[in-house]
Amino acid sequence: MNTFGEQYRISVYGESHGQVVGVLIDGCPVGVSLCESDFLPDLQHRKSGTKGTTNRKEADIPIIKSGVFNGKTTGAPIAIEFENNNIRSKDYTHLLEHPRPGHADWVAHQKYKGFQDYRGGGHFSGRMTLALVAAGVVAKKILPQVNIHATLKSVKGLSDTTKAVEEAIRNRDSVGGVIECVASNMPVGLGEPFFNSLESQISHLAFSVPGIKGIEFGDGFASANMFGSDYNDVIVDEQGTTKTNHSGGINGGISNGNDLIFRVAVRPTASIGKEQNTYHFGHQKIEPLTIGGRHDACIALRVPVVIEAITAIALADLSL
Amino acid sequence: MNTFGEQYRISVYGESHGQVVGVLIDGCPVGVSLCESDFLPDLQHRKSGTKGTTNRKEADIPIIKSGVFNGKTTGAPIAIEFENNNIRSKDYTHLLEHPRPGHADWVAHQKYKGFQDYRGGGHFSGRMTLALVAAGVVAKKILPQVNIHATLKSVKGLSDTTKAVEEAIRNRDSVGGVIECVASNMPVGLGEPFFNSLESQISHLAFSVPGIKGIEFGDGFASANMFGSDYNDVIVDEQGTTKTNHSGGINGGISNGNDLIFRVAVRPTASIGKEQNTYHFGHQKIEPLTIGGRHDACIALRVPVVIEAITAIALADLSL
Amino acid sequence: MNTFGEQYRISVYGESHGQVVGVLIDGCPVGVSLCESDFLPDLQHRKSGTKGTTNRKEADIPIIKSGVFNGKTTGAPIAIEFENNNIRSKDYTHLLEHPRPGHADWVAHQKYKGFQDYRGGGHFSGRMTLALVAAGVVAKKILPQVNIHATLKSVKGLSDTTKAVEEAIRNRDSVGGVIECVASNMPVGLGEPFFNSLESQISHLAFSVPGIKGIEFGDGFASANMFGSDYNDVIVDEQGTTKTNHSGGINGGISNGNDLIFRVAVRPTASIGKEQNTYHFGHQKIEPLTIGGRHDACIALRVPVVIEAITAIALADLSL
Amino acid sequence: MNTFGEQYRISVYGESHGQVVGVLIDGCPVGVSLCESDFLPDLQHRKSGTKGTTNRKEADIPIIKSGVFNGKTTGAPIAIEFENNNIRSKDYTHLLEHPRPGHADWVAHQKYKGFQDYRGGGHFSGRMTLALVAAGVVAKKILPQVNIHATLKSVKGLSDTTKAVEEAIRNRDSVGGVIECVASNMPVGLGEPFFNSLESQISHLAFSVPGIKGIEFGDGFASANMFGSDYNDVIVDEQGTTKTNHSGGINGGISNGNDLIFRVAVRPTASIGKEQNTYHFGHQKIEPLTIGGRHDACIALRVPVVIEAITAIALADLSL
Repeated sequence: MNTFGEQYRISVYGESHGQVVGVLIDGCPVGVSLCESDFLPDLQHRKSGTKGTTNRKEADIPIIKSGVFNGKTTGAPIAIEFENNNIRSKDYTHLLEHPRPGHADWVAHQKYKGFQDYRGGGHFSGRMTLALVAAGVVAKKILPQVNIHATLKSVKGLSDTTKAVEEAIRNRDSVGGVIECVASNMPVGLGEPFFNSLESQISHLAFSVPGIKGIEFGDGFASANMFGSDYNDVIVDEQGTTKTNHSGGINGGISNGNDLIFRVAVRPTASIGKEQNTYHFGHQKIEPLTIGGRHDACIALRVPVVIEAITAIALADLSL
Repeated sequence: MNTFGEQYRISVYGESHGQVVGVLIDGCPVGVSLCESDFLPDLQHRKSGTKGTTNRKEADIPIIKSGVFNGKTTGAPIAIEFENNNIRSKDYTHLLEHPRPGHADWVAHQKYKGFQDYRGGGHFSGRMTLALVAAGVVAKKILPQVNIHATLKSVKGLSDTTKAVEEAIRNRDSVGGVIECVASNMPVGLGEPFFNSLESQISHLAFSVPGIKGIEFGDGFASANMFGSDYNDVIVDEQGTTKTNHSGGINGGISNGNDLIFRVAVRPTASIGKEQNTYHFGHQKIEPLTIGGRHDACIALRVPVVIEAITAIALADLSL
Repeated sequence: MNTFGEQYRISVYGESHGQVVGVLIDGCPVGVSLCESDFLPDLQHRKSGTKGTTNRKEADIPIIKSGVFNGKTTGAPIAIEFENNNIRSKDYTHLLEHPRPGHADWVAHQKYKGFQDYRGGGHFSGRMTLALVAAGVVAKKILPQVNIHATLKSVKGLSDTTKAVEEAIRNRDSVGGVIECVASNMPVGLGEPFFNSLESQISHLAFSVPGIKGIEFGDGFASANMFGSDYNDVIVDEQGTTKTNHSGGINGGISNGNDLIFRVAVRPTASIGKEQNTYHFGHQKIEPLTIGGRHDACIALRVPVVIEAITAIALADLSL
Repeated sequence: MNTFGEQYRISVYGESHGQVVGVLIDGCPVGVSLCESDFLPDLQHRKSGTKGTTNRKEADIPIIKSGVFNGKTTGAPIAIEFENNNIRSKDYTHLLEHPRPGHADWVAHQKYKGFQDYRGGGHFSGRMTLALVAAGVVAKKILPQVNIHATLKSVKGLSDTTKAVEEAIRNRDSVGGVIECVASNMPVGLGEPFFNSLESQISHLAFSVPGIKGIEFGDGFASANMFGSDYNDVIVDEQGTTKTNHSGGINGGISNGNDLIFRVAVRPTASIGKEQNTYHFGHQKIEPLTIGGRHDACIALRVPVVIEAITAIALADLSL
């Protein structure tokens, strides 16, 4: 199912080369100011255009179809759509027989029995993150006091992120990266033990973003290398402030009011211009494949605002 | 909410020092053989007793309360309960004013306004993982062809797991670890793009397990340091077998038939015998706290079977 | 929440005088043929135009925004929208102070704190049933073997439905009616005991249709006047055919393969041209209200196809 | 699925002749006083013992298994169980071949492929309403200001309910009835347009009660026989009080603060002592069946408290 959330419930729809990408938001409180221009800053952060991103340029104008009246949310579901305009009508049919490595081409073909819209990744496309960013903009308005900020920390292990990107472009290759997200001024008490833990909700959404292959909260994997006496965050005052923040602001699945901190790993973009030797199901043998089209050499450059969005969505859902 | 799943839906209930720990399973197919002894091997793997684990000993006898008739599941909900017997009636009330670092004591007190059952961690206790293990045993029976195996790969960064455990015990401290889970003989097509991605489902459940602070699929965080030409798994035959398995058996959120591989980071057990300086809300100042009771120096020793359980639960839910 | 269903999940959005009325369908199987013209026959049945219905004329052209590729469903969510064009920009603001009897004006104002879109009923409008009819068309395609047929049985208690309608029109009044729905060629086994009973699912959806105030299955209220020996449907053959069908084709919440039969009561349309004395919150006294605009004297004339739609939706959801 | 509710979520489990009947309640607010004796008055109303009810006598002692600490709810899930003790170990296996008319015997056998627990109705038994009554007791505590009262209005169409019951007993037959439920001192604003309408929620739960075959709100089916000018409830004061209450206290799916009123039809108990001619699947012909065991001649006598319970559950879920 393409729906997430209990109180702030979002449903994504659309395809990369179909008419639209859209999101339906149910459960937004009434009276939240909302207009198309509110979306533009975050949409701008997601846009391509800088070195290392695709040259498919889309206007990405959000159209609010329902749920807003006189500039305020009404309590009815909010549908937001983006039209797809800059579509190149190239032929994708050969990928049905010669699926791209690292892509969902082959599994989609198995799962959807050949009925999937395979153009430009269809419903699997990274373009679908437009829907997440839009839902994140509304979510941020529900929790205005929380500051959510995600940044690209490293590309190919280096904090100087340009070097590896340039190498990838030069070699018609792609490269991965690590993004860190910090939410400050957090309320105490978001999340629950077990299935609605704050980590569960955020990770569930994070792994809905194409290309994410790891997530860690606070010290994360490094905490596995620590003794408890070093790891435990002792409380130092009445407000629950902790001396350290190894836990990333979460105890027992619940926010403790300190900064929420987590990192995600973005794998290298699956589409690369470099030739790859992979199985051709029609010819029944391994054959070289060269992928045309327009790609991001480092999709991690465009993902931080998506990670902010899913953080806002998770927090809004748990806070309502 | 304490419920997970759409088709194979599990709900956990109970407390560490209450009457029972239980799980209610809805959506199990009819005709699955099930009796109490089926649970014993996995329960044994979860048990304490070896060096580094608590000396609270519980019989952990599962009682099937409903949903099974003549040794087979009926299609009605299956309730399984474990009685709590070996409870030490020590006093936990002082922790309300002097919350333990790294525990949920303080956030639970804020969130539940003082009504939480604070004895032995209450509903937050690691003892609740009994419910997950039980639900995992039933899930494994739904997917008998899939082999799920989780192992402790390292403790404090060392593959020789005993050394750091002994050091932790000696210092009345605790220590974390990394667990790897591999599911082989996987069907193709489990999971969906976006919110029901296989990674989303597994991570959601993994972070429901107390103490988990990170998860990565396939190469995970290492993939952020790779070029796409090294990362992409090329297909080599008709069955979709890939030459490498950097993606951990998942493309576009969907299982591709290769081994599902992921790792989780377990932080050091929060309870340590060592003195910790942390805020006393009654005395309004930082004071030393020494935690009594029985603890696991390395809870990661007991978690592998829990990780197997949540993997089976996720796969069962997606496959039904 | 504006979503219904577990497997065939529909979400409605839009407003009477907003940009669109829409429905998002998730969970439709792949490979179902679907194009805009498939919707036209049922949309035609819902349309106004005959005596006793409103003279607001809308083209009601369905636009499939996503989820269909090469004329077949892809497994991705299907968004279907209808534009609102024939909107009369009259002023509805006086209704905020002088709410219409029988309408949701006053409760909506209380619940949504004045932020509701009050134009033409907003999200409460009967126009929203367009979304249900569209979802019903797709649902019928999922269960092609089942024949679902709903008819207006009586208006103001008379099977000659025109007489009371004409009287209502003459008096600028409105009138109610009873609709019967029969689904034949039913599969055995749809529905479950308790919360997913076939009656529960259908009634849940039926009471989502504006104006429905009662539902009964099989003999319904008449069964309360019967002895068990008269009511019980004895089985007469191997296929489970029953001699009588007092239960309306459902036992223990589960379809038994005989015709599914139920009736719904439609109250008279709330909007009437006749003057009504009702409280004016601004003037703080009871004052006469005359409602302008365009109304259906007997909305029951247009509801049968909506009842067919919700039946198809319930059956599709339970059968998938 | 055997779960209902979004905020106040209940899951029922158990069987008539199994170990227990139970209910798991998730989402109950913290700090609600709760102990076993709180359940006794409503359980007493559900009990058999008066003329026209079964002579199976069960102690029906509720056991709170979790979620309550120091006499107050903790916010963790509340499991409540009832043991089955007074079970007559008669043989039910012949019913597999000669299913009882009006019962779920045959459909259950088809749906659950013979694995259903067929003893005493198994998971379909009216005994499962114990779970609903228990969940209702907790729900009533969440909305203490609302008074919910259900009464048996007629049996076989007569307000003198004893006459038809005695006739049914005399003839080893059964008989149906109509129950009316009134909730007074209602808050304004419970329910939503469309799928969470107050009528949708209540009817969904009402049809989960074995034996219910019809429901109507306010004037219900009679409203289909009215003109709008007679039906519409005009508002007479600042609080939204209406002069009449034809709508049963609901407009647009939302409570309007006036009394919530609805009626349900209870069909005659399916089990009757009288001989019935019905198909024998083993002998492949119609044969007389005489049902032994202990039955209620008029189950409607015991259902009012169940209807109160489901009303409280629906209101609690919508109000949280």
